[in-house]
Amino acid sequence: MKILYGGSGQAPNCATMEFYISKKMRGVQPSAIREFFKYASEPGIISLTAGNPAPEALPVEAMREIMSEIMGAQDVQKSLGYGISEGYAPLRERLKVYLREEYGCFDEARDDIIVTSGSQQCMDLACRVLCDEGDVVICEAPSFTGAMNAFRSFGVDLVGVPMQEDGIDVGLLEQALKEHKNVRFIYLIPNFQNPTGYTMSLEKRKICYELAKKYGVPILEDDPYGDLRFAGEAVPAIKTMDTDGIVLYARSFSKVLAAGIRVGYMSFPKELAGKLTVAKQCADVHTGTLSQLLCYNFLTQRDMAGHLREIAGIYGRKCAVMVDELEKLPADRISFSRPSGGLFVWATLHGVEDARDFVMRLVEVKKVVVVPGSGFFADQRPGPNFRMTFAGASEEQITYAMRAIGEVFGSL
Amino acid sequence: MKILYGGSGQAPNCATMEFYISKKMRGVQPSAIREFFKYASEPGIISLTAGNPAPEALPVEAMREIMSEIMGAQDVQKSLGYGISEGYAPLRERLKVYLREEYGCFDEARDDIIVTSGSQQCMDLACRVLCDEGDVVICEAPSFTGAMNAFRSFGVDLVGVPMQEDGIDVGLLEQALKEHKNVRFIYLIPNFQNPTGYTMSLEKRKICYELAKKYGVPILEDDPYGDLRFAGEAVPAIKTMDTDGIVLYARSFSKVLAAGIRVGYMSFPKELAGKLTVAKQCADVHTGTLSQLLCYNFLTQRDMAGHLREIAGIYGRKCAVMVDELEKLPADRISFSRPSGGLFVWATLHGVEDARDFVMRLVEVKKVVVVPGSGFFADQRPGPNFRMTFAGASEEQITYAMRAIGEVFGSL
Repeated sequence: MKILYGGSGQAPNCATMEFYISKKMRGVQPSAIREFFKYASEPGIISLTAGNPAPEALPVEAMREIMSEIMGAQDVQKSLGYGISEGYAPLRERLKVYLREEYGCFDEARDDIIVTSGSQQCMDLACRVLCDEGDVVICEAPSFTGAMNAFRSFGVDLVGVPMQEDGIDVGLLEQALKEHKNVRFIYLIPNFQNPTGYTMSLEKRKICYELAKKYGVPILEDDPYGDLRFAGEAVPAIKTMDTDGIVLYARSFSKVLAAGIRVGYMSFPKELAGKLTVAKQCADVHTGTLSQLLCYNFLTQRDMAGHLREIAGIYGRKCAVMVDELEKLPADRISFSRPSGGLFVWATLHGVEDARDFVMRLVEVKKVVVVPGSGFFADQRPGPNFRMTFAGASEEQITYAMRAIGEVFGSL
Repeated sequence: MKILYGGSGQAPNCATMEFYISKKMRGVQPSAIREFFKYASEPGIISLTAGNPAPEALPVEAMREIMSEIMGAQDVQKSLGYGISEGYAPLRERLKVYLREEYGCFDEARDDIIVTSGSQQCMDLACRVLCDEGDVVICEAPSFTGAMNAFRSFGVDLVGVPMQEDGIDVGLLEQALKEHKNVRFIYLIPNFQNPTGYTMSLEKRKICYELAKKYGVPILEDDPYGDLRFAGEAVPAIKTMDTDGIVLYARSFSKVLAAGIRVGYMSFPKELAGKLTVAKQCADVHTGTLSQLLCYNFLTQRDMAGHLREIAGIYGRKCAVMVDELEKLPADRISFSRPSGGLFVWATLHGVEDARDFVMRLVEVKKVVVVPGSGFFADQRPGPNFRMTFAGASEEQITYAMRAIGEVFGSL
């Protein structure tokens, strides 16, 4: 291992050296979604790819007023200076109350909270603190690419357990827990899962919690979409059952306030506070102070509940348009999820082994971009699925896009 | 390894389970500086601990105007939405020109650039991409705790090479490169080093570069303070010599614009672009859009060079006060660095093996807080050193604090 560069002769003035790349990063590929972004920027394209919030769901006026107050304050220096790694103290205190009162996901005696640079960073910090290289993380199959890549980037082996319409297959979950050594946590997205849009039933949530207890493996519960419910009754988070202190619960302002300010947060058993805080120092010292103040002021000065109702309504209407149009397509060609919240619909082509050809044809012929499903699986295997979001497009675009899917069927 | 929790019996309703903590994080302790922060918040305390920019060095009015423009723009949605992982494209393009024209640290043919969440994240990304667990990173001894902790958090072994007044001991650096296998990079802070305030000579920079080439080991050059020169001539960065494409060069807006907005950046050989971008996706998707726009607008619309002259002047005056007072102390009791830029002075007590007792006495008797040196060494060994910053305190406070040091000598 003394030859650190694998390149042959060194040509001066020319970047020909090959760098040694860490084993853990060799297999990490750019997110499938982000690969398809390149199409999304072409003119005339209708993109149903990225889970960006709808532009009309941004509370622009409120954000303008809040930022103007923050920047106009006498002590604006504080808003521009270093903060502590745990997060802006008033925001953390407010989030504790918010999580406890609104969601039952914070227990003063048992839990602590950290503010992160988007909930993506919760995945980073949890994995950094809990996993060595070669350890195992169990995730849903399919699951969120960004989280899986974060785990991969720490050299973790991913084990995917198949999803069903009411959540992860708990029989296979137990089998995976039995079979694999060094499982460090189970990664779950119980509400309006990315990419499937499925919601885990209360019964399965209880079983997951009991399995976690039985096998002594923590759960990392990721809940970025839980507030975006537009149909049915809310199902309690697994974190609400956490009398044993084994659940880390990640949330985000990205889907409900603004994605570009990069603020997420995590409630977790207190014993982990020291290590998670040091991990945060290692990662980026602290989350941007201005962004944290934006969230704090919105939470404390505005009608968060009303705002959430309003944006859930926006997504509900858009989802209905998508699902109504999908219902008109031939049922022998395609099936799809009917989410009661979140941003995503998961479609399955019948009689097709790999949806990528169809997805490419849809771009080329109809200029409609969706994301093929393979990137959402731990093993990245090709499959008959693709993911669509109804969040960013207009209702007219959604209608056009769903009909385009039908027309591409006809031309196949 | 089947018992994942080490705790004994599980008491219900009580967080008694012990989590498995990754091997790499077990040894990572909170930064010594941040430990001493707790004193800094007590009333009446004069803190010379954190490398916070001086409050008067913040361009508050300009920031207010720029933020007002950003938030007032028609397309403010863009400033609040997701961005790409590499960074806001106009900012990246501007930084390329800025680095090339002002510093000679960007070569269009050879380099690429990424915007990070503070330059702390450059350490994270570089280490994630270049190092496996058990690999070696060589750093200066002493060096910046935050960077060393970031490396430790990836399970890397740190090898410290002693500092001299003109930079790292290059003889011992070569010895370390010979002795240690799997050295993945050399971490250097050539300008106004943290914690010593020392600046590496041009000759030593050239030798470091040649050694890196000879042993096929990249250099991670960290330059957060380079713009804060208040005496003498600028020394070219090692990156300016990088005809072989082996230097990653990290910079920050934290010390020159505002620390709380968390924006840093790194120019690096193009071959690493793919992996660094994916690593950034894994870490936090992208750096906050508003923060990036603040930097972009400041760089393009304001007089950056004039601003840098102004703040360097502020630090120069404060440093002079500190050094002038230190000169009055008995030379047989204390020696200290005389930096020509940056934020830090490094002091060495004579005839003392561990400065921590002195530091504690200084807090207790005089309410002056400085940072003991041990935390800045890879092996965290106790030593006769402590670090002070002249950035945050007023000139009166600096004078009082230096005299307090003399008085504590008298009382020992």
